[in-house]
Amino acid sequence: MRATLIEVAPRDGFQPIAPFIPTNEKVAFVEAAHAAGLRRIEIGSFVNPKAVPQLRDTAEVLRRTAGLEGLDAQVLVPNARGVALALEAGARHIAYVVSASEAHNRSNVRRDVASSIAEYGEIVSGLPAGVRLRLNLATSFDCPFDGRMAEGLVLSRLEALLAHHEDVEVGLCDTTGRADPDHVFSLASACLARFGEWTRWVFHGHDTYGLGLANVAAAWRAGITAFDAAFGGLGGCPFAPGATGNVATEDVAWMFARMGVNTGVDLDALVRLAARAASLPGAAPGGRVRAALLGACATT
Amino acid sequence: MRATLIEVAPRDGFQPIAPFIPTNEKVAFVEAAHAAGLRRIEIGSFVNPKAVPQLRDTAEVLRRTAGLEGLDAQVLVPNARGVALALEAGARHIAYVVSASEAHNRSNVRRDVASSIAEYGEIVSGLPAGVRLRLNLATSFDCPFDGRMAEGLVLSRLEALLAHHEDVEVGLCDTTGRADPDHVFSLASACLARFGEWTRWVFHGHDTYGLGLANVAAAWRAGITAFDAAFGGLGGCPFAPGATGNVATEDVAWMFARMGVNTGVDLDALVRLAARAASLPGAAPGGRVRAALLGACATT
Repeated sequence: MRATLIEVAPRDGFQPIAPFIPTNEKVAFVEAAHAAGLRRIEIGSFVNPKAVPQLRDTAEVLRRTAGLEGLDAQVLVPNARGVALALEAGARHIAYVVSASEAHNRSNVRRDVASSIAEYGEIVSGLPAGVRLRLNLATSFDCPFDGRMAEGLVLSRLEALLAHHEDVEVGLCDTTGRADPDHVFSLASACLARFGEWTRWVFHGHDTYGLGLANVAAAWRAGITAFDAAFGGLGGCPFAPGATGNVATEDVAWMFARMGVNTGVDLDALVRLAARAASLPGAAPGGRVRAALLGACATT
Repeated sequence: MRATLIEVAPRDGFQPIAPFIPTNEKVAFVEAAHAAGLRRIEIGSFVNPKAVPQLRDTAEVLRRTAGLEGLDAQVLVPNARGVALALEAGARHIAYVVSASEAHNRSNVRRDVASSIAEYGEIVSGLPAGVRLRLNLATSFDCPFDGRMAEGLVLSRLEALLAHHEDVEVGLCDTTGRADPDHVFSLASACLARFGEWTRWVFHGHDTYGLGLANVAAAWRAGITAFDAAFGGLGGCPFAPGATGNVATEDVAWMFARMGVNTGVDLDALVRLAARAASLPGAAPGGRVRAALLGACATT
């Protein structure tokens, strides 16, 4: 058995940190994640630098990490403008984000869901050969404004999106961290049953309420084998109040190791990396494995 | 659907805290837990006060909380001497602890497992009418000295113990927090299948590696409906290196609320209680819901 961990700290984790992380340090983090065995890394985003100043150097991070062997670097984009910038910077894997929730989509990308879906169609048809697309469905479970998302609504959003491009990897994102294991198992099972295997699925969880690993375990049980996570449990969406903390990569790696599932990750190297990330000025780290394995439990 | 939360912070949570918590404060915590809707509370233990000085006032806490309406107060004992002291203090619900692991039993209660099982038999036969017994099987999943416990060994320990007293509540304790959801589901399912419904089961989890809620969810899925937890995520066993942090009661209550399972707990009151507990001098608090609901995420 094998699970794929997709490291998103350089994007989702760094994004809410106010003090600018020097580009050299960002590159070093990506290199360390690669050295720890992570091969899929979301290294940044092409969004308005006024909205997310921390990630204004994504083009340079992309360029300077392009030589890492076997690295599949993805970048997040909120719109067609972001796609153009990403392509110009040499990105070969682009993650487009749209929200299931109308209110969250307006807050996050300043347009209605229908407009985002239409634009996604245009992006798909204009995509250069060899560039891969990933689709992130934010608020797949819960919205900071609208609460719990009805499963039928989420499936209909996916129906409309996948009509443009069936063979895409879809991230089911628990943006607020308020999904519970039953909810995750139910939606993940429904997606796999309805849209079949041609679509690859990723669960993107936050640990805001401590349910990060419980939800990863539920998604795994439903048949999802790829998981977004952030070293040090960094993260959170600045447009989703209270949504702090992606599930920690080292916690997910630990859980799968205990379950006999291979992730290809060097846990010791990952924990050292997580400890460095947790000490970044302005960071709000999470996760438990870091402290447990570094023996810091007794004193913190 | 209904799940029962058994509050163990006054015993497992306070036990490793070095500065003595004044008896008045302990009583106030039990009263606050009762006011938050918790009816089963492990209020202390009768162990050697030299080994666990924090709990030397259990008899007084027991006496002073005896009038709380509907309170089912249990106390932990490691041996027959503890049972005698508990009965003398008026305890009506006694939790006897024995480890699945030979090495942990020697470290924890200073005798071999066979001796503990034999003594348990004597305690059962000498128990006054109306006094209830609970059986905690420590290291049911993993031992700090011996590693992962074979399921066959754990089932044979239970076989021997239940031969003395079938109609007992059994706590399957993840002493080290190293159990994973598959492991919990497997052992819990095996126990329910083999020993049937006459025995009531409790899952006792620690969140040392972030798997507390994932394991509670797995136990629930296997059919277990009662869970030990500690407000504020306090806890840890002083004889199990690295075993910090019971799963936080407020996190378990939150998860069950999201899953539509009734626990009878007032979550707001519980979170306020957890915040008080987390600020106890010498405490190593855990859990996520407290910070999330009190809005402290952004600043911690």
